[in-house]
Formats: sequence, C-alpha cells, structure tokens
Amino acid sequence: MKVLVIGGDGFCGWPTSLYLSDQGHDVTIIDNLSRRAIDGELGIESLTPISSMEVRLGAWKELTGKEIGFINLDLATDYEELLNILRDSQPDAVVHFGEQRAAPYSMRSDTTKRYTIDNNVRGTHNLLAAVVETGQNIAIVHLGTMGVYGYGWSGSAPIPEGYLTVKVPTPDGEIDREILHPANPGSVYHLTKTLDQLIFAFYASNDQLRITDLHQGIVWGTQTDQTALDERLINRFDYDGDYGTVLNRFLMQAAIGHPLTVHGTGGQTRAFIHIRDTVRCIEIALTNPPEAGGKVSVFNQVTETYRVRDLAQLISELTGIEIANLPNPRREAAENDLNVSRDRFLALGLNPTTLSEGLLEECRDIANKYRDRADTTKIIARSVWKKGMETSPDLVM
Amino acid sequence: MKVLVIGGDGFCGWPTSLYLSDQGHDVTIIDNLSRRAIDGELGIESLTPISSMEVRLGAWKELTGKEIGFINLDLATDYEELLNILRDSQPDAVVHFGEQRAAPYSMRSDTTKRYTIDNNVRGTHNLLAAVVETGQNIAIVHLGTMGVYGYGWSGSAPIPEGYLTVKVPTPDGEIDREILHPANPGSVYHLTKTLDQLIFAFYASNDQLRITDLHQGIVWGTQTDQTALDERLINRFDYDGDYGTVLNRFLMQAAIGHPLTVHGTGGQTRAFIHIRDTVRCIEIALTNPPEAGGKVSVFNQVTETYRVRDLAQLISELTGIEIANLPNPRREAAENDLNVSRDRFLALGLNPTTLSEGLLEECRDIANKYRDRADTTKIIARSVWKKGMETSPDLVM
Repeated sequence: MKVLVIGGDGFCGWPTSLYLSDQGHDVTIIDNLSRRAIDGELGIESLTPISSMEVRLGAWKELTGKEIGFINLDLATDYEELLNILRDSQPDAVVHFGEQRAAPYSMRSDTTKRYTIDNNVRGTHNLLAAVVETGQNIAIVHLGTMGVYGYGWSGSAPIPEGYLTVKVPTPDGEIDREILHPANPGSVYHLTKTLDQLIFAFYASNDQLRITDLHQGIVWGTQTDQTALDERLINRFDYDGDYGTVLNRFLMQAAIGHPLTVHGTGGQTRAFIHIRDTVRCIEIALTNPPEAGGKVSVFNQVTETYRVRDLAQLISELTGIEIANLPNPRREAAENDLNVSRDRFLALGLNPTTLSEGLLEECRDIANKYRDRADTTKIIARSVWKKGMETSPDLVM
Repeated sequence: MKVLVIGGDGFCGWPTSLYLSDQGHDVTIIDNLSRRAIDGELGIESLTPISSMEVRLGAWKELTGKEIGFINLDLATDYEELLNILRDSQPDAVVHFGEQRAAPYSMRSDTTKRYTIDNNVRGTHNLLAAVVETGQNIAIVHLGTMGVYGYGWSGSAPIPEGYLTVKVPTPDGEIDREILHPANPGSVYHLTKTLDQLIFAFYASNDQLRITDLHQGIVWGTQTDQTALDERLINRFDYDGDYGTVLNRFLMQAAIGHPLTVHGTGGQTRAFIHIRDTVRCIEIALTNPPEAGGKVSVFNQVTETYRVRDLAQLISELTGIEIANLPNPRREAAENDLNVSRDRFLALGLNPTTLSEGLLEECRDIANKYRDRADTTKIIARSVWKKGMETSPDLVM
C-alpha cells in the first residue's frame, strides 16, 4: 500500500512511518518539522537525542534496505504543492498526524491558541479539499483524541466509538437518532479535533471520502521494535509541562529524583495506549477503511484507563520517589470516572500492551539512560487555562 | 451602547449599522470590503448602485447628524490591530457578520472552499481570543444560519432554538441530556457556522464569554427605513447564482422578464426573514445578552417558512412570469418539511414583517427601478456541489 504520512516526524508519526515501512508499505513522510521548531521556541529538547530527518531515513535504509521518502511541506499553507504530490504519487491512503497536539501549549497564549486553530483546521481542510480535487479514491486516516468526548458525560454508559443513539422527543412520540457523540473539548487543542470531526462528516457525505478518525488516549512508552533498532532511529520523549504526557513525565521524574507532579487531587481518570499499539492501530485502520458513501469510521484507540493518582502511586512504590500535589492549571473536573468502548480494534486483532507487562521497566530505562539530558526548569506545567490561575514554582533547582 | 459591527459593509451588516446608529448606539464598522472584492472576482455588481463606504457614512452624517466610524481590517489576519481596537475603543458589544456567507460560492472550487473555511474559522476564533486577551466584558452577537440544523432531522418536532434534550441509554436506565442540536450542514459555508458553534461553546465555558448565536433564515427585501432615506445609503441587492438568495432572485427575475429559476422540484421548504426584522433582531440580541458563565444564547432568527415552488408560484401569479425548473446544483433532499421554533424573539417583542403585507411590492419596486443594471449572464446558478453535476445554460440572451 502506498501511504503518505503527514506529520511523520512527530512522536506518533515517526514510529508509525517506520512500522508501516517495516510491514512492506511504500511510505513517504510529509512534515514541516514544526514540532522541532516548537522545541526551539520553548527552549526544550526531547529527553532522547533524536536525529535529523536525513540521518533517520539514512539509518533506516542502511539497516533495512527500505526507503522512506520525505517532503518538507506545511499542510496549512502549501496547498498547491500538496495537490501536486497527491496527483504525482497516487497514494492509496494518507495518514494525517499533522496537527499541533499539546493541550497546554494550545492554552499558553493567544498566539498559541490562534496557531493551534489555524494550523489544525486549515491543514485538515486542505487535505480533504485536495483529495476531492484529485478525484482519486484516497483513504484518509486521522489521529483524533478521546478528548472530543469530554469525560463522564454519558452517566454510567461507556463512551461509544464515535456515535451515540439517542431518543429525540417529538409530538408523535420518541424517535431514535444516531448522532456523533456530543463534543465536550477541554482545551483549544481538543476543540480543533471536534472541528475536524464535523469537517470529516461533511466531506464523507458530500464527496463520499473514505475517512477513519481515531480517538486516541494518552500515549505512553517511547520505543517500538523499529525505533529501538539503532540510536539514530530513537523516538522523541517529551517531559516538559506542555508536551510531556502524564505517564512519561512520571517515569522521567522518577528517573531524575524529581517529585511526581500530580495536579489537583489526581482524581482525573484517563485512557492510555502504548506507542507500540498506536502504530499497530494505524495499520489496522489503513487496511480496514470504510466504504465510500458511508459515514466516517471512528475507533477509540485506547487500551486501559487509570486514575492519575493511582499511576503516581504505582510509580512511587516502584521507585521510592515522593508525590507532589500541585495546583491544577486546567479547568476540568477534579474527579471523573471513565469507561470507554474499545471493541473495534480488539475485534480486528489488536493484542494490547498493558502497564503490567514489564514495559514500565523498558520505559524507565529510557528515562534513566538519558536522565542527564533533562532540564529541570522545564518540568512544571505553567500554561494555564485562564490568566491568573495558580501554578507551582520549580520543585528541584 | 458602544458597538463594533464586523462586516458592516455587507447586505445584513450595513442596514444593521444604520439601524443601531439610528437607535442611538455608538457604532463603528470594521470591514475589509471583501464582499465588494468578490463582486469584482465574479464580474458582478449589486443590482442596486451601492456607494463607497466613505460616501455612505458621509451621507448618513449629513442626513442624521450621526457619525459611524469605519476601520478597514481583515478579521482573519489582522489580529494585533483588532486587539488594539478593542483595548482602545472599549466596546460594550461586537456584532460579528464578518464571514463569507454564500453557500454556492463556498462550493465553487477548492479555492473558494478553502477561503470560506480559513476566513470564517480564523476570523471567529481571532475575535474570541482577542476578547479574552483584553479581559474586558464584551458581549458578542454572531450571525449563524438555520443551515446548521439541516432540514427535517428531528421528525415532526419543530427545530429548537439551539439546544435539544435527548434521552441517552445507560446500563442504569435512560438519562436526559441537553445537547447542542446535532450539526447537519449542507455546504462548506454552512459547515463553518457549525464549527463556529463549537468554538463559541468552548469559549463560553472556559472563559465565560457572553455569546449570542443567531440562526438566521434566508433574508429577503432590500431596504430598511434607514437605507431608504437616500440613494447613497441604499443596501446591496444580489441576484447572481452565487450570492443571490431565492426570493430576491425571483423578484429580480420577474422584474426583467426572466423565467423564475426553481432548482429540482422546488420542494425545498426554507425559513425566511425580512431585512427589516434582521436589524431589529440584532438590537434585541444586543440588549438581552446571556449571563457570563452560562451557555451560548441561541435564537432562531426566522419569521416564516415557505416551499420554494410555492414562492415561485406566488410571484408568477403576481407578475405573469413563467417558472423554469432547472437541475439542482446542490446535494440536498428534493422535498422537505420545516417546522422552526422562533419563540424567543417573539417573546422579546419582535413584530414580524410578513410576505403578505405588501412588502413584495416594495421589493419588486427596487427590482424594477434598477432592472437595467441586471447582467442576465450571471443569473443561472453554476456552482455545483460536486464536479460533473448538471446546470442549465442561460435562459435569456
């Protein structure tokens, strides 16, 4: 299968590109390297020493004999070039990771709010408009987020995979209607994924585009079998207050002896998935596209749910590192339950990697190996959801 | 009340600006004159001879002694300037008409699809981000569209004003949930208004912005008491296949002896409102903003519903002009019923102008007076919803 991976330089995009190439697909990465530029803007580096795209792709070819193409292109602005690429390369599918993906960064300032909206919405829409314009039957797989649903909206019912059947009252009695699960985004970043959903629904209906939207949980872990082959292929590991995700942050904090930073009560329950499962899910989605003329195919891309304070407790017990309860910079429920349907990927053969399978150790080893690269001034989350909300000073000097 | 009217040069924005000024409000128009630029792009002129903004505002001052300010600014791109204006002028409210508003234009090409998405979403989000950034308690009134709901989705129940209470099944029994009415947009233009809704909901919740969203029907008529004062104040009248709306198009076609262009069966039922009521509704919305911290206040801004073929028949009987049934360039249901709740404006004192009140005549007079300005090559609707859909050749040479 010929696949373009937009955002193929990022945390999910890079291991996905390698996995798809390893599985025999013909992969070309499209990326404007914006994630590296934001590292520069924030004065941060990945805990792991990531190589340039040129070195990454050279190493992959040297080790496997497989070639991955690379085109430096900004999806939000370089529309004509995108169109030419689709026409010239005639891909079977496009995987779209090309969005700003950090909730705290999206709330950092009016500049980052605007960048997140403008970049994500324009990029997604440009891709759909271009696919329509080519007239080619290109399947699209997009990385969404569990955050489109919000948390705990539907009472004791599990969060369904995209669609919900509700009863609508009418003068003639109730009627059943299947609706897209109502949107309850918790940040400007999450908001963009809810906008994407409506854009997808329109293009699936008006133009019969074949679109899959994957509502992913919080990714943990760093390496896949492919990125672990050689240090030049290593995946990025974010630990800072904006881009670091909760479990990886705890693992890194434990590795350097920094208190585990729990915001608020830690009563937030979140959905998780290992990066090894992310890449498998993408391939499953690619090989199981919806029919043209049908609705958008939505999967919940999660394998386990945990309460944040329970995760912190688990890691504290494994490592002896204390827990620090800090002010919560987000506007969100202090405590929530979370029950997520995830039947579709399981039915298609996903065999999930769980926290209990010793992978904590592997991940901790990455954090330990590169602990000297940590900048402890970047650990505390300082992007607040509204001006004036409290944050914590640095805990380790 | 100090009010900024974004898009105050357009078909709804201009008469609203005059009406608010006439009512004693302190009005400043913000507009990048994009609607005039699109006239140029399409090789069209308003049937009525609209004056430049300078002439318009000079005439208003000469006739009434009232001053309306004007700032030429692109909401989608001139963010810093917008922020400075909000800080300097300290408005009580902003009325936001600043969006590309024609469904056919939004489907014309990939360029116009992309312009509509980029312009509308970025503009709306810039406004909200700027209001948050100022920290000022500025109310926002936005012009939405009935098209966010789609047509006929909720069975025999009238389309509610924004929100719908549905029953959600759970293992513990059904629970009631109030949701934003599910989005069913029929074009990229309508899609942008559904995206706006989600952006509004987020900012009303996260930042306690006070936002009113007005889901307007199809506007007919041209003049208000204010625009009729002097020809230099005349409102625009669009009759072309992209920007002309159905009833005004019929009136103009009748005036020049052109067959009345009904697409498909004409079985589409649509909601209408006269431009005189539009401007009144805007003032009612301005003077009845929601509380901070509440949800977005949604009104259905419509007064009557008609089936397109019935409207054509009515005008054909009045004028003796025949009806031409043309291919439908839109992807939509051939026939639909439409039942719309519109209690909120009526409760706040709106006394609607109906078709039966002789205003057809006034409107026809405008069409008759300026009939020599018509370009008959611009009447047929040629923007199709998908490539290859059929349209009609010109009916009058």
